[in-house]
Amino acid sequence: MAIITIIGAGMMGSGMSRPARDNGHEVRLVGTPLDREIIAEASVSGRHVPMKRQLPDGIKYYQTEQTTEALQGADYVICGVSSFGVEWFANEILPILPVNIPVLSVTKGLLDSPDGSLVTFPEYLKSRLPEDKKDKILFNAIGGPCTSYELMDRHQTMVYFCGEDLNILQRFKDLLATDYYHIEISGDIRGVEGCVALKNAYAVAVSMGIGLAEKLDGKEAYMYNPQAALFGQSIREMSRLVKMLGGDNALAGGIPGAGDLFVTIFGGRTRRLGYLLGLGKSYAEAKEELKGVTLESVVIITRMCRALRILGEQGKVDLKDFQLLFFLDSVINQGAPADIPWKKFR
Amino acid sequence: MAIITIIGAGMMGSGMSRPARDNGHEVRLVGTPLDREIIAEASVSGRHVPMKRQLPDGIKYYQTEQTTEALQGADYVICGVSSFGVEWFANEILPILPVNIPVLSVTKGLLDSPDGSLVTFPEYLKSRLPEDKKDKILFNAIGGPCTSYELMDRHQTMVYFCGEDLNILQRFKDLLATDYYHIEISGDIRGVEGCVALKNAYAVAVSMGIGLAEKLDGKEAYMYNPQAALFGQSIREMSRLVKMLGGDNALAGGIPGAGDLFVTIFGGRTRRLGYLLGLGKSYAEAKEELKGVTLESVVIITRMCRALRILGEQGKVDLKDFQLLFFLDSVINQGAPADIPWKKFR
Repeated sequence: MAIITIIGAGMMGSGMSRPARDNGHEVRLVGTPLDREIIAEASVSGRHVPMKRQLPDGIKYYQTEQTTEALQGADYVICGVSSFGVEWFANEILPILPVNIPVLSVTKGLLDSPDGSLVTFPEYLKSRLPEDKKDKILFNAIGGPCTSYELMDRHQTMVYFCGEDLNILQRFKDLLATDYYHIEISGDIRGVEGCVALKNAYAVAVSMGIGLAEKLDGKEAYMYNPQAALFGQSIREMSRLVKMLGGDNALAGGIPGAGDLFVTIFGGRTRRLGYLLGLGKSYAEAKEELKGVTLESVVIITRMCRALRILGEQGKVDLKDFQLLFFLDSVINQGAPADIPWKKFR
Repeated sequence: MAIITIIGAGMMGSGMSRPARDNGHEVRLVGTPLDREIIAEASVSGRHVPMKRQLPDGIKYYQTEQTTEALQGADYVICGVSSFGVEWFANEILPILPVNIPVLSVTKGLLDSPDGSLVTFPEYLKSRLPEDKKDKILFNAIGGPCTSYELMDRHQTMVYFCGEDLNILQRFKDLLATDYYHIEISGDIRGVEGCVALKNAYAVAVSMGIGLAEKLDGKEAYMYNPQAALFGQSIREMSRLVKMLGGDNALAGGIPGAGDLFVTIFGGRTRRLGYLLGLGKSYAEAKEELKGVTLESVVIITRMCRALRILGEQGKVDLKDFQLLFFLDSVINQGAPADIPWKKFR
């Protein structure tokens, strides 16, 4: 049995405690500064308030100032922060991470650079390692359709673990695979992580179909043709983007791409955003209804289009291949109406 | 304006009357022997009873014995029969079809042969043409996510028209494209038609996830991880099968594959079959609940696996690539329990 330290006690970080505990490992769940109340409550009652569920028995809970203690003797680290916490993780956690302990990250997203290049979080964290730790910590990541509460409820789930070293990935797989948590391993970080990030962007588009339907047909809308067309167009564009990122574009039509897009449109705030935009609300109005929260989906749409414009100017991509993504960008960042450019799709 | 004769007044054949009439064409809707009541009622009231909708104004209705009359002077023919009607169409209609009038077919399916080869319906109909008409009638087909009643309601819809001759396809596109019916044309008959057929098979699998969820969590099941994994695995296998058929496997992750699979799991009898199997009913029990009807999905699962076994023996495919399809076959044709082989997926 191993010692697994999970840093970040949000939904997905905490969710990972289920297979880890079911396999009998010691789990140390460490809150970020934002998770103070979650840890305080869970350490008393075992209750994860935002997830509305009991966490597994036997977890050891730590507040953020106890992180060093929680890392002591750990065999594995799971980075459970969202994309908005990556800078914090790089600044605060990387310097205190012990070397030679592999990290598995649940963080979704891509970062763009002024030259149009895009970087996955495992690559970014690697680049942010202090000099004395260079190449001494391997960053791996999880992709594929997995909502935290369903993992907590032991629903059948298939995911990808990706990273540079297949042996390390196999160790993570041995550590966490259960009869409900099925893991494939892949050396294709850019392919898997590209899908992970992009499915959030395209989930806004497919969910727009739900709002559009309701606007036209009323509450009981049964309209699936438009959603299906948006779904198909999404996978087409994702496939091209994954290829552009240097990944295997077959992943876009598999578990990490199509599968993850599928699960994302069934719930959560990204669906809600798409739905509101489909109803005809402006992004400003939709954001207000979402209590002013900037969603990861909005960030990835913005970043991808910013990068693509630069790559387009360099002649490296044909922007016409990404009609749906640029349409999303125009709705969110330029106040354009939700008038889907069906005739331009290709 | 053209004269379009639609043979087969079922759901999809009749649905095509919407864009055809909206574009001002003369539409002649001809019933098969099974459509007698549909035509009788529609010709009086304009009501399509099974579709629960009014058909567009101005359609001319014909019973099956008036087919020759309905074909007289027609510029285009739409074959609106289901896969169960293809033999009838080949036997009864091909001999009386005028030459040099292109046919566009909505029929979904593939036919298998004793040597394991698989044939699309456009190819099959071509092979069944009488000697004097050989190469004088071109068979084209429609793929992609389009339910008939949504087309009738003018929901935004994207489809593929496929066939041998891009000029003919462009003519069909010019004929039928509207501001809600979006058409891409493709010379890849085997790719598009492979997706059309296979999505029915895999829709059973994804819908099984709905029944499984309800069995475990009760009526209000919110379980999407398993459906998403099944969706992703479906597209992976479809992609391999489309490639095996000689088509472009990118279609599996696009409008005809992923898009059409998406729309198919939201309703209809294929969803119902998968749901019942997921609940734990045997295929025999599920079939009884479906009033003894053999679904196209069941036929395609059976045919594909029969063909694959032969191709596997010939060393042309690795059957391990199709774990989900063979699992479906075992449930339907061998009475196996709905115990999804998650660990075998690849």
